[in-house]
Amino acid sequence: MLILGIDPGTAIMGYGLIEKNGQKLRAIEYGCWRTSSDLAMPYRLKSLYNKLESFLLKYSPEALAVEELFFNRNTTTAIAVGQARGIVLLGAAKSNIEVYEYTPLQVKQAVVGYGKADKHQVQFMVRALLSLTETPKPDDTADALAIAICHAHSHRQLRGI
Amino acid sequence: MLILGIDPGTAIMGYGLIEKNGQKLRAIEYGCWRTSSDLAMPYRLKSLYNKLESFLLKYSPEALAVEELFFNRNTTTAIAVGQARGIVLLGAAKSNIEVYEYTPLQVKQAVVGYGKADKHQVQFMVRALLSLTETPKPDDTADALAIAICHAHSHRQLRGI
Repeated sequence: MLILGIDPGTAIMGYGLIEKNGQKLRAIEYGCWRTSSDLAMPYRLKSLYNKLESFLLKYSPEALAVEELFFNRNTTTAIAVGQARGIVLLGAAKSNIEVYEYTPLQVKQAVVGYGKADKHQVQFMVRALLSLTETPKPDDTADALAIAICHAHSHRQLRGI
Repeated sequence: MLILGIDPGTAIMGYGLIEKNGQKLRAIEYGCWRTSSDLAMPYRLKSLYNKLESFLLKYSPEALAVEELFFNRNTTTAIAVGQARGIVLLGAAKSNIEVYEYTPLQVKQAVVGYGKADKHQVQFMVRALLSLTETPKPDDTADALAIAICHAHSHRQLRGI
């Protein structure tokens, strides 16, 4: 089963595709898509959407996982991330891929086993669980892989009920 | 020149298409697209995107105008509106239609001539400026027409420089 984790943003969007085979997890492809700040927002979104669309077409993942967003910071950021998130959800729906949402707490619990884990602990566990030789960079990529792992674990739990 | 104003939302998205011919403004088509709360968000966004895409294909407006968003309310609303806004900007970029943003203050100044105008004053002027027999309903539709009118007026000012 292929699971795609996405960390949405308009300047940089992290993606992490993993394969779940029984209890084994393996990273297939991960990285981030960037857009230039010289581009107007509609064209940044178009660029990201086209990249996501090609990626979904190439791999046909069974699930797409994103973080449920709770901001108490500034709302301008929330709108920007919302815009990026909107085109990700649209891309999934257009490709008939189910979308799953997890809170940051659920991601940390699933990946580290501890809801208050810090960024470095999450990155360390992402690297360990996927047997990577290096910590995925930038943070957006690591976060995308973390949410994909969270879905892989949660999925296992759901099936266990 | 055809101008499309959009008031983005995921449950209800207002649209207002107007024609500017010299100093004359005329409403061509306006209303709102609704989505059911029974649908998961990706499918609500897909439904709205498809409607917008068909509309753009049918009319090929020269400009799409939306409000610049500033929330100081809750960020959950900001994310939801951001998602709806994201697919609108994407649709415009895919159809090579330029997007223009105006603040609520600019819209009120352009439509009523007074930045602190209330909702009813804006709706009254939308009806008057477009010679409509009734006030457009719901508010989302009136707001979409108001932003289209704002662009028509601003455009005139810009060309006057």
